[in-house]
Amino acid sequence: MASLKSWFSIPRGSHFSLANIPFGVISTSSSSTPRVAVAIGDYALDLEAFAANNGFSALSTIQPHQSVFSQPSLNAFAALGRPLHAVVRKYIQSIFFENTPYPDVLKTNDSLQKQVLIPLKEVKSHLPLKIGDYTDFFAGYHHAYHCGVMFRGEKDAMQPNYKHLPVAYHGRASSVVVSGTPIRRPHGQILENPGAEKKVPIFSQCRKLDFELELGAFVCTPNPRGEPVSVDHAEQNLFGLVMMNDWSARDVQSWEYIPLGPFNSKNFGTSISPWVVLMDALEPFKVKGIENDADVLPYLKQKGDATVYDIQLQVDLKTQTGNSATITKTNGRHLLWSYPQMLAHHTITGCNLQSGDLLGSGTISGTSPSERGSMLEQSENGKQAVKIANGEDRTFLQDGDEITFTGVCGTDDEALVGFGHCTGKIEPALDLGL
Amino acid sequence: MASLKSWFSIPRGSHFSLANIPFGVISTSSSSTPRVAVAIGDYALDLEAFAANNGFSALSTIQPHQSVFSQPSLNAFAALGRPLHAVVRKYIQSIFFENTPYPDVLKTNDSLQKQVLIPLKEVKSHLPLKIGDYTDFFAGYHHAYHCGVMFRGEKDAMQPNYKHLPVAYHGRASSVVVSGTPIRRPHGQILENPGAEKKVPIFSQCRKLDFELELGAFVCTPNPRGEPVSVDHAEQNLFGLVMMNDWSARDVQSWEYIPLGPFNSKNFGTSISPWVVLMDALEPFKVKGIENDADVLPYLKQKGDATVYDIQLQVDLKTQTGNSATITKTNGRHLLWSYPQMLAHHTITGCNLQSGDLLGSGTISGTSPSERGSMLEQSENGKQAVKIANGEDRTFLQDGDEITFTGVCGTDDEALVGFGHCTGKIEPALDLGL
Repeated sequence: MASLKSWFSIPRGSHFSLANIPFGVISTSSSSTPRVAVAIGDYALDLEAFAANNGFSALSTIQPHQSVFSQPSLNAFAALGRPLHAVVRKYIQSIFFENTPYPDVLKTNDSLQKQVLIPLKEVKSHLPLKIGDYTDFFAGYHHAYHCGVMFRGEKDAMQPNYKHLPVAYHGRASSVVVSGTPIRRPHGQILENPGAEKKVPIFSQCRKLDFELELGAFVCTPNPRGEPVSVDHAEQNLFGLVMMNDWSARDVQSWEYIPLGPFNSKNFGTSISPWVVLMDALEPFKVKGIENDADVLPYLKQKGDATVYDIQLQVDLKTQTGNSATITKTNGRHLLWSYPQMLAHHTITGCNLQSGDLLGSGTISGTSPSERGSMLEQSENGKQAVKIANGEDRTFLQDGDEITFTGVCGTDDEALVGFGHCTGKIEPALDLGL
Repeated sequence: MASLKSWFSIPRGSHFSLANIPFGVISTSSSSTPRVAVAIGDYALDLEAFAANNGFSALSTIQPHQSVFSQPSLNAFAALGRPLHAVVRKYIQSIFFENTPYPDVLKTNDSLQKQVLIPLKEVKSHLPLKIGDYTDFFAGYHHAYHCGVMFRGEKDAMQPNYKHLPVAYHGRASSVVVSGTPIRRPHGQILENPGAEKKVPIFSQCRKLDFELELGAFVCTPNPRGEPVSVDHAEQNLFGLVMMNDWSARDVQSWEYIPLGPFNSKNFGTSISPWVVLMDALEPFKVKGIENDADVLPYLKQKGDATVYDIQLQVDLKTQTGNSATITKTNGRHLLWSYPQMLAHHTITGCNLQSGDLLGSGTISGTSPSERGSMLEQSENGKQAVKIANGEDRTFLQDGDEITFTGVCGTDDEALVGFGHCTGKIEPALDLGL
């Protein structure tokens, strides 16, 4: 990794080392129009300004496409396809190399540095892509198993279809928001006494508000309607990953979900981290997922063993009083189904995916209690409180609680490929006067 | 209705009488850029050309907004809100009145007539709105009941939540297509022997391909995230209705849907009729829906009895060999939940709906076999064939079958408010070599 030494000061331990180069959409107080950027160390490189000042003049393949960097979303850049993403990412890396072949572009160009490198703390991040459709899978095996045990007992924990297909549902795209956006506690119908014979709901604020620790993949290359994407080609249609918090109203969910699945319990907000880590940046961290002992149908059989990613994931909860704790440490590898398998299954009917579509992994949990990616699992559906600090504990989320996800690949402090953070704070429910 | 007499020749029995004025998006061979139009009799009135030729010069309120008619979708027009829709619709009606107050605009202007009135048979219809999110409800009571009887028996036919909330799931927006678009038979996982103890799926073309007769409502006015819309205000946020065919792969559905609901069984295509009938045009046809004997929570209690629409709905099936039959006659009134109730429920969590979002009603069936809005119900899940003609019959759809929905309000042949048709023909599955 010697070649990744940079003339630019990138703090040790930064998620945004030269090995990463994640893409996002930013604005600043002096320039409020959202545009495309990459994150490097503690800075954003404003690609609109960089392109306008001939930053890409050495890169002929990107010349005809430079307008993508002036867009308020990454959709147009994503739609250029993975070969061009790779060219742009490598070029940006090379600009920052200690021994860059293009010193005039930025290394020795102080005035351009001042213009295009903006401290991240001065940057406002926006939703990185305009999401057409959002699909949420259920590929976190330990989560599915543990929820199954809680609700149906060990014997029937896994549904018969679980190991044969990547179970999924269509989610709500309009309420996907960027990290930092507050989440208002929703109202809904809940059953106060689910065990009663006569099931009559009450109207209430959600009392079992939860987070779900997920990864989200963005689609770059669309497939036409009617044309499935093969599992071995599917990775070429994926742009990159973000962390995703699929906020969930568990009490609303358990009453509403039969027979058509979760609806209101999931449609009030989904948070994603602002910087999209490209598939190429994740390639060195591929690992084997959870072994599937079912006889998987050919359209889901993927070549090679390493199909998921070794991403160290962490959840921190900070309460309104300032107490905080790391409540989850787990890993992105705990998936039964890989993203190429999810995409191949999604399109096997001919369903058309579009540039900017978001695919959630499903909640990612490990096997032990401290590895579980939701309060539902950690608290055994409210039965045991999770300790925070100074006597505070939680079963589900309280008003003012802030949840922060952190995700990072690698151990070399000078070459981390990280996702930064995905945060969201719970606001009290509206007074609806009902 | 004497005032609806027109100087323009509108055939008796036309769905597009002056009482209607539905909006759509068209292109023509001589002008291939999609733009906004209304349907009148056998003609489309090209509103882009009409506006460009001072057609709206007498209508000062629409002057600042005329660019909406040059858009490739109705989203911008819809977002203007219902008061402006009403103004535009009434103005267009008045232009066509026998005793129009604006004779110079079109009645006596032969050259403009030639320019802006295009025979419908020369018009290509496009998807009328760009759909952000598509939600499919399950409000057709008789459909829910009959499916419940088929799968769980009479005693447990209705799920406990059904009468308390409008059950729904998020659908797939990208594969919503305009009437006339062919639908390719999907592949998927199916269980050949669902009763077997060991459940191992096979990969197959769908063998139980079905239609679902639905209405679809488009949202016009958005609500901000975090802010529910009250049931009595909800109608103001609705643009208009279309007919909708929620094509379904029943064998895929029954295997995949536990526990998160239908996914691949519904994501390969949904057809809608091209002309959006505005809520104002439907107002005279409001009727009482199905009585709900549950104690509905206050946020779903709607003022007034007439909350759904008396729309005569019909399904015709034409086979590849040319045999055809009307297989369903039913009515839009067979809903337990109204659109305002659906919208109020959808947003009670704070879920933000956007201009162009589509809300499906769920399958609309009456009580008798010939009133059922799907083959699943008509054939009792494949157990009894439905007669077409000349010895041909169907349990589910075969390749080459064409399904046509027709919907119309009213009995006065000179003042019908109709939806036209929503058609789709089944293409054979792709050979995937699997």
